[in-house]
Amino acid sequence: MKIVMVGEAAIHRDEIAAELGFEADYLALPREAHESPEWDEQIDGADVLVAMRFKRPNKAEVPRFRLLHVPGAGLDGIDFSLMPEGSVACNVFEHEIPMAEYALASMLEHEVGLAAARASFDSERFASAYLGRKPRGELYGKTVLIVGFGRIGQAVAVRAQAFGLKVIALSSRALNGQLKGPCHEAYTPSQINEILPRADYVVLSCPLDDETRGSFGADQFQAMKDHAVLINIARAAVVDEDALYQALLDRQIAKAFLDVWYAYPAGSSDSVAPARHRFEELPNAFCTPHISGWTHGLFERRYAFIAANIRRLKSGEKLHNVVYGEA
Amino acid sequence: MKIVMVGEAAIHRDEIAAELGFEADYLALPREAHESPEWDEQIDGADVLVAMRFKRPNKAEVPRFRLLHVPGAGLDGIDFSLMPEGSVACNVFEHEIPMAEYALASMLEHEVGLAAARASFDSERFASAYLGRKPRGELYGKTVLIVGFGRIGQAVAVRAQAFGLKVIALSSRALNGQLKGPCHEAYTPSQINEILPRADYVVLSCPLDDETRGSFGADQFQAMKDHAVLINIARAAVVDEDALYQALLDRQIAKAFLDVWYAYPAGSSDSVAPARHRFEELPNAFCTPHISGWTHGLFERRYAFIAANIRRLKSGEKLHNVVYGEA
Repeated sequence: MKIVMVGEAAIHRDEIAAELGFEADYLALPREAHESPEWDEQIDGADVLVAMRFKRPNKAEVPRFRLLHVPGAGLDGIDFSLMPEGSVACNVFEHEIPMAEYALASMLEHEVGLAAARASFDSERFASAYLGRKPRGELYGKTVLIVGFGRIGQAVAVRAQAFGLKVIALSSRALNGQLKGPCHEAYTPSQINEILPRADYVVLSCPLDDETRGSFGADQFQAMKDHAVLINIARAAVVDEDALYQALLDRQIAKAFLDVWYAYPAGSSDSVAPARHRFEELPNAFCTPHISGWTHGLFERRYAFIAANIRRLKSGEKLHNVVYGEA
Repeated sequence: MKIVMVGEAAIHRDEIAAELGFEADYLALPREAHESPEWDEQIDGADVLVAMRFKRPNKAEVPRFRLLHVPGAGLDGIDFSLMPEGSVACNVFEHEIPMAEYALASMLEHEVGLAAARASFDSERFASAYLGRKPRGELYGKTVLIVGFGRIGQAVAVRAQAFGLKVIALSSRALNGQLKGPCHEAYTPSQINEILPRADYVVLSCPLDDETRGSFGADQFQAMKDHAVLINIARAAVVDEDALYQALLDRQIAKAFLDVWYAYPAGSSDSVAPARHRFEELPNAFCTPHISGWTHGLFERRYAFIAANIRRLKSGEKLHNVVYGEA
């Protein structure tokens, strides 16, 4: 069995090998093989291609493989029109746990302000820091609007409810203000502007698609409370970049935690900027380099899942998490 | 009705006045009146004394009052032997919410590392920060030992369980490994050294009393995992200061979040150091100036509670949260 792993996926070869239980030929390709045809001869004939992205500038000739296993959930990096005949694509989740932890860490950082409190601590100025403490806020009793109520949104919701937050979900599956799952109220995406004025926190956890691309713009920032906080752990392009920058500059909202970006490096020599604006220079933009899902636990769970799917492919069983082709 | 408010309590006069619903004479005294007899003539004859502490160097003459309302939960600042005959003391809680939020903020800061991730973000070095991300840890699946399972400990537990943490409670009320409340297992304080090796997080939320003073020392640090994290939101003196400093210096444990201190200023001109050691100079000590419970919501809830007790005192109803004297 030939298993080709592209970019970061190649780091996890040993995790797959340990879980597979049989010998296989592994081939590691650089990150650039996601989009360049330069390595296609090496990919050709693979049983499994493990790659976060699959695009080509020219559709004339594409390599053949049986299974494209995306080692993540997002499918916006895959051009499905390139998929070889009879091939199957699968994805994998498990990131809802770390991403929900990131979202709650952001919300708590905003209320508790641990970093600033630590910076204020000095044995020689303890008395003034202690006596001059300013009361802070609490999550308890506040309202969070979760845009996109899939696995990530629901994982955020379960944790938010334990803090006494009111959870409002926005989902196309909402019906008459109701939705199955850990939320107090639910509405459809078209109702967003009616709900935004009630939210202290807005967490974006929807997929990027034709409906959501650029869907959060000037009108939405206008509808938000001026003390509200936006947390984007979906895809940057869900939010209009200029409108976001302007809303933060004008303090239309209190803060944005931004973990997802408008551009990513294609390879290690690509020094592309994450956005056209320098968000990190705004004091109310809390920028992180897409760390929300990046944990040891994530990789353990994901590559165990991928290995289980490869075992199923070998034995002719039904694959799990099929997103393209026949299971 | 004469209401005397000492130190920080005096800031909240308007909250009490708004909730009381009847006129009263309010007197604000400085923080020093907690322990100095200099203001006793002014306190004498008060219906209500609202003060976090009540101590006197000389017990010969103490002012008379009917109700001492402590505007917090901790009673270690009160010398009950000074209470006038027939007087009553009450305390107030409501801090379990912000303190649990502080504890979870600390745990998430340790796993997610938002502050460091933010510091690594720069548009010109985005590619290297993004491509060089190191996987971090998760709270999910870890174990937290909560020492003292009262209101605060249980509030931490409810939130910790939502993150998929295993919660072990240490409480004198535990019986045969079981305890009513949001925990998976429970043991008595004498079993601490058997349980410590299992804990990834240890949260101290017990009262300071003869049993707990200095009870967490070198033996306990020795029993902890080297990657474990201590969070002290109880009272500093529960932990032996030298043993704590040494454990952090020697990296016997990974980190300590310290919000409570060995000494506090008696008044605004007192520049007392919080500890004999300069903990803030240790990279693995995360020091904050007793902010864990300090929120707007806390004061709203507490002074509404105190006002309700003063209304009960006036109308001769049974007081709530009586900790000394006849209700």
